[in-house]
Amino acid sequence: RTVIANLPSCFFQGILERLDAGEIVIGDGGFVFALEKRGYVKAGPWTPEATVEHPEAVRQLHREFLRAGSNVLQTFTFYASEDKLENRGNYVAEKISCQKVNEAACDIAREVANEGDALVAGGVSQTPSYLSCKDKTEVKAAFRKQLEVFMKKNVDFLIAEYFEHVEEAVWAVEVLKESGKPVAATMCIGPEGDMHGVSPGQCAVQLVKAGASIVGVNCHFDPETSVETVRLMKEGLQAAKLKAHLMCQPLAFHTPDCGKQGFIDLPEFPFGLEPRIATRWDIQKYARKAYDIGVRFIGGCCGFEPYHIRAIAEELAPERGFLPEASEKHGTWGDNLSMHTKPWVRARARKEYWENLKPASGRPYCPCMSKPDGWGVTKGAKELMQQKEATTEQQLKELFQKKKF
Amino acid sequence: RTVIANLPSCFFQGILERLDAGEIVIGDGGFVFALEKRGYVKAGPWTPEATVEHPEAVRQLHREFLRAGSNVLQTFTFYASEDKLENRGNYVAEKISCQKVNEAACDIAREVANEGDALVAGGVSQTPSYLSCKDKTEVKAAFRKQLEVFMKKNVDFLIAEYFEHVEEAVWAVEVLKESGKPVAATMCIGPEGDMHGVSPGQCAVQLVKAGASIVGVNCHFDPETSVETVRLMKEGLQAAKLKAHLMCQPLAFHTPDCGKQGFIDLPEFPFGLEPRIATRWDIQKYARKAYDIGVRFIGGCCGFEPYHIRAIAEELAPERGFLPEASEKHGTWGDNLSMHTKPWVRARARKEYWENLKPASGRPYCPCMSKPDGWGVTKGAKELMQQKEATTEQQLKELFQKKKF
Amino acid sequence: RTVIANLPSCFFQGILERLDAGEIVIGDGGFVFALEKRGYVKAGPWTPEATVEHPEAVRQLHREFLRAGSNVLQTFTFYASEDKLENRGNYVAEKISCQKVNEAACDIAREVANEGDALVAGGVSQTPSYLSCKDKTEVKAAFRKQLEVFMKKNVDFLIAEYFEHVEEAVWAVEVLKESGKPVAATMCIGPEGDMHGVSPGQCAVQLVKAGASIVGVNCHFDPETSVETVRLMKEGLQAAKLKAHLMCQPLAFHTPDCGKQGFIDLPEFPFGLEPRIATRWDIQKYARKAYDIGVRFIGGCCGFEPYHIRAIAEELAPERGFLPEASEKHGTWGDNLSMHTKPWVRARARKEYWENLKPASGRPYCPCMSKPDGWGVTKGAKELMQQKEATTEQQLKELFQKKKF
Amino acid sequence: RTVIANLPSCFFQGILERLDAGEIVIGDGGFVFALEKRGYVKAGPWTPEATVEHPEAVRQLHREFLRAGSNVLQTFTFYASEDKLENRGNYVAEKISCQKVNEAACDIAREVANEGDALVAGGVSQTPSYLSCKDKTEVKAAFRKQLEVFMKKNVDFLIAEYFEHVEEAVWAVEVLKESGKPVAATMCIGPEGDMHGVSPGQCAVQLVKAGASIVGVNCHFDPETSVETVRLMKEGLQAAKLKAHLMCQPLAFHTPDCGKQGFIDLPEFPFGLEPRIATRWDIQKYARKAYDIGVRFIGGCCGFEPYHIRAIAEELAPERGFLPEASEKHGTWGDNLSMHTKPWVRARARKEYWENLKPASGRPYCPCMSKPDGWGVTKGAKELMQQKEATTEQQLKELFQKKKF
Repeated sequence: RTVIANLPSCFFQGILERLDAGEIVIGDGGFVFALEKRGYVKAGPWTPEATVEHPEAVRQLHREFLRAGSNVLQTFTFYASEDKLENRGNYVAEKISCQKVNEAACDIAREVANEGDALVAGGVSQTPSYLSCKDKTEVKAAFRKQLEVFMKKNVDFLIAEYFEHVEEAVWAVEVLKESGKPVAATMCIGPEGDMHGVSPGQCAVQLVKAGASIVGVNCHFDPETSVETVRLMKEGLQAAKLKAHLMCQPLAFHTPDCGKQGFIDLPEFPFGLEPRIATRWDIQKYARKAYDIGVRFIGGCCGFEPYHIRAIAEELAPERGFLPEASEKHGTWGDNLSMHTKPWVRARARKEYWENLKPASGRPYCPCMSKPDGWGVTKGAKELMQQKEATTEQQLKELFQKKKF
Repeated sequence: RTVIANLPSCFFQGILERLDAGEIVIGDGGFVFALEKRGYVKAGPWTPEATVEHPEAVRQLHREFLRAGSNVLQTFTFYASEDKLENRGNYVAEKISCQKVNEAACDIAREVANEGDALVAGGVSQTPSYLSCKDKTEVKAAFRKQLEVFMKKNVDFLIAEYFEHVEEAVWAVEVLKESGKPVAATMCIGPEGDMHGVSPGQCAVQLVKAGASIVGVNCHFDPETSVETVRLMKEGLQAAKLKAHLMCQPLAFHTPDCGKQGFIDLPEFPFGLEPRIATRWDIQKYARKAYDIGVRFIGGCCGFEPYHIRAIAEELAPERGFLPEASEKHGTWGDNLSMHTKPWVRARARKEYWENLKPASGRPYCPCMSKPDGWGVTKGAKELMQQKEATTEQQLKELFQKKKF
Repeated sequence: RTVIANLPSCFFQGILERLDAGEIVIGDGGFVFALEKRGYVKAGPWTPEATVEHPEAVRQLHREFLRAGSNVLQTFTFYASEDKLENRGNYVAEKISCQKVNEAACDIAREVANEGDALVAGGVSQTPSYLSCKDKTEVKAAFRKQLEVFMKKNVDFLIAEYFEHVEEAVWAVEVLKESGKPVAATMCIGPEGDMHGVSPGQCAVQLVKAGASIVGVNCHFDPETSVETVRLMKEGLQAAKLKAHLMCQPLAFHTPDCGKQGFIDLPEFPFGLEPRIATRWDIQKYARKAYDIGVRFIGGCCGFEPYHIRAIAEELAPERGFLPEASEKHGTWGDNLSMHTKPWVRARARKEYWENLKPASGRPYCPCMSKPDGWGVTKGAKELMQQKEATTEQQLKELFQKKKF
Repeated sequence: RTVIANLPSCFFQGILERLDAGEIVIGDGGFVFALEKRGYVKAGPWTPEATVEHPEAVRQLHREFLRAGSNVLQTFTFYASEDKLENRGNYVAEKISCQKVNEAACDIAREVANEGDALVAGGVSQTPSYLSCKDKTEVKAAFRKQLEVFMKKNVDFLIAEYFEHVEEAVWAVEVLKESGKPVAATMCIGPEGDMHGVSPGQCAVQLVKAGASIVGVNCHFDPETSVETVRLMKEGLQAAKLKAHLMCQPLAFHTPDCGKQGFIDLPEFPFGLEPRIATRWDIQKYARKAYDIGVRFIGGCCGFEPYHIRAIAEELAPERGFLPEASEKHGTWGDNLSMHTKPWVRARARKEYWENLKPASGRPYCPCMSKPDGWGVTKGAKELMQQKEATTEQQLKELFQKKKF
């Protein structure tokens, strides 16, 4: 097996040139979860001040994803809008400005990207301002503030990600399009659609009409569910005779049991999700499924560690013609076990073994599935939304508090 | 809550001074597993050439453990004996000498230890030479070669760890004692004892008689099983009227179903262990149990990530009087969820919630337990060992191959 | 607590008078499964020759259901059409005529019904003739042959049950309506509808138009799924402005994982279903749910033992005003445990305990869910059916054999 | 396959003649559980007044076990000592005397035994008098009262069963031996021994010394655990150079998770045990294991339905040379599925399929194991018992109430 560490020339091209040429683009993994486990991000706020406080930790994680095969390094600017940072910022020892966090994120991503000729994508995500019902102008201003940094630092393209409401996502796309750079947009929704009841297909249509060249989903749901959601987006675009590239960056957690708002409502979120972590083989299955339905920008979100990204790159190596650098330290389908002293461990050095393994949890007192918490998933809530009696999260919450369902 | 980042003066003292004074010493976590997931170690060989190839990755992991609360940084010299490195070394692009790997490991550990005044421990582990029945002189020579590097680099103390046979562990302790430095010794065994059928109590007695000041277990079994094994060691020492400090560095995987040789025989080893990963709360329970039976050197092995080490430090913060640096990014028992917008997520910001959670696997087609592979656990094998017909692994293996059981 | 063993006068009325008056009618349980476990019915053929061979065993089971609260005793004539009996009859020691089996079934049911003034329902079910594509005339002749016996023995009303195709069910209803007696019709389908893709709502509409006064489902799916299917039937009838009574007789097995053709495709069918057996508390939940959506003829099918039927009667005792005879030997919600010598067993003598219990399987090597076997559930099959390329089971089977999906 | 319904002549011989000749004797199943589900026994008291109230139901169950292969019909006299019946008798509509219950039990068992030439065994079980610390004379008087009925009705032999304390079991054996008839004695204990800490081996020795010709266990634990307990009994007898026949009548529930006092302490007892019910294939494995360690009186207790007993008879048919009558309605290892219309159901008509099936529970929110309730299993309790500080259940209970552990 040959590891081709020198990437082909196409990698010097922009994101759209590559996707238009039919290339597979591999995204990166989940920064807030990985850095929380490493001790640099606080669960709850999930804010990225580590770019200023501990740049070496952020740099190292970028580097690991690059080695694992990522062609896109997203700036670690999740929840880095000014309103969010102020909201939660009070626990940070010395006040760090929004601008500083965003600038540092760009610098670090670019530094590592240059080690491997990857692209840098500046990212914005949903804002507290939108949820507290502030108006379009104010929300757009928050995105514009982050965009200014991205322009100054000259990122390669932009991603609007982690939106629960397509309305806000559209606003974000509209702002990002002002830059002239390519824009990707992903929502954190499942097959039931956004929190206002807009279907995945309709979300995709609105995002493309707003200017997004790449659409899809990220976070909140497991790979299988997310691929299905992207499939529904594709159907919606086809029905509307629109064209866009597809993108998928799901959780690396198994969540067959979650409700409309995804893994946040699961009782295990965020500190008991371990038994749900996907194996590398689960991720290979995901990469294949995503590829098969036409997704060409394939990455991950919360829970994705570097070895999960490598699994995508290994699964699609036949199509791409090369393996990532980190595959130097990995045998395909466990073939590195073939030298083990025990015959039964050697017997695990094959694809069929890992493909068919049903891994045990070692937790005999725990169940396989949980009932999600919250009002988001009750039948009453669903019906009310369908009846248009409650069209916003806020209204639903009020109804819930009045015990109407 | 106050985070006391400046460590108390006792930390400038040696390992034995601290343990003799009744201090709790927190170990570090599992390098080969953590770096495998980050793309720097190959599963199968599990060798530490990354100290030379990618020192920044090793340094970063040391730093994370230090921030999480580790008082001891072990040199990343697992399986770094010359025979092992040669055995498996052929896949490494350019040949890296055993000495270079060991020296780099010492340098990196010391560099990071100085950032926080932690101790550096040089480590040796079981050798292929012993398993292939080479003699005492040859095995001891291998350990001595590593020890020379540790002496040159002036580590603070020494650990002989990951031994399946007490005989080889005793040889290692004898060599390490030649240095005059304190020696700790841990075996990778469970309550059934070593591979020759020597009980945990007897193992502890032999190790202390050979010169170890600290004894215990590491790897191969989950925290609960490992604490029980250390308890048996303690009983053995008491019965023999011997004194030693106790140490425990288990897996961060749930393995109630494994046999005598631990998690290696589980069908999920090493690429399907995810559903078995311990939560931070599982580790807090472990830290408390270990403390309660008198263990004062408490750390982890394979599967332990920085947040697991932090969980030990947080659980024992009342006894120690301070929290580790990384607790700046962590709310005790989830209290950082108390600001969440959803009331049911806020309801998770309390100890009872996480203590009692039975986390689901999200894998409805998978079982809770596996039957271990291999002959190590068959009843026939056990009976034969009891009958003294087969007293070594090799003999058992031969009997197995002859299908005698 | 008072057990009112003497039934109210309304019980002397016919099935429609009772349902029209708003009474709850309790059905009986699953004869073929119960008698298979008792040693009188052969799994595979599932034919009822026991009515002739061992009438005392059939009589005893009827009696147990009567005591448990059944208001309707169905003649044990499942699969007792001539074509079915001939098909599978060769293993019966001496040939027993179809007529004799059906007559004996009527006599036994009536004998026991008279012990408690229950109603006797003569039942027909799907025929091999239909599946082998014989014509309407032939299939109807088979039903008519059974009907002749029911008329001679003067059953109180008729049930066409266990139909996978609404077309055949309609033929059965048409034949049974010739008698002038009330006719109920249940299909063994889930929410996805019949094997030709006819929705539950459309099935209900066709059955009522054919003359059925009572419609619903029986067998193949668990209580929760079956109640949902009946709800869909109700919606279909409402949309068509048709009126009928609703009936539900599900499995007493948990089958959340089964596909379109129900539990037969589950790997556990029929000899490994034990871990799926519903508790009495599961059945109380079912009875309540069925009642809440408006079902008034509530019983069970395969897996329902007498104590499951009693659970329906106990759950609905507040609405009905009386308990069944067998409740003399049963404490509501475990209250009979309140005298136990152990305090923790006494603590189980309350509703909350049993309502919230998540019973363990005691099978740590087994999963919670299975993947159904067969082509019936593949996506390819579903799509083909939707595309009308394959409209019968036979066509699907052929496509399957050609490996078209 | 030929079913030999006419039993061989050896069946006219007594229990000891048969066992001495090396025959396999098949016991019957669990009356209180089976009749509770049928509506004739009340859970909690578990008393057998049904012999008088509903003899036809008791008779039918005996008949089903006989057909399934039972060579011994135990009189349904469980908990039928006078003190027990008086204790719990107040819920029985009209007072039924202890003598009447015992006599009716004998008459029914004999009537059915004569249908198949089986043996009738009169049974006594532990008494409330013993637990309330009454003296030997009083307890023995209670057994003697039951024995008088057994002598009058001339049962074939006697069984003292379901004893948690070997002391009381020995008293029972001593009384039963006064009759001159063969006596079998089984305790409801696991490998940890009786409630006073007497090991299985010691229990067996005491029972044989008291006069029992057959010893073993019944109830409280699953087949696997029970076979292991009988194996320990056998070892105890061998060590003491005593000879006796071995007997095993376990639960038909999987209970790997239960503590010293067995399934009563499991949270599922007695109304949520369904997911633990053994399949027929589980029972075949049990029968084989029991046979392999030398048990020749093989039956069941709570949870054993007729088809479970048939599974014993089918598994051991090669050794015995014949099948039971009820096998006329059962294909060995599912071979009756070979005619099914669906190919994947036909594929289940073989031994490997059922032997290897890991049946799913269909309960994704339920775990595989439970923590037993009660003080019986706490470590503190065990240690106290070992320290002889608490030697009776009562003392343990008091300590528990004082929260000493």
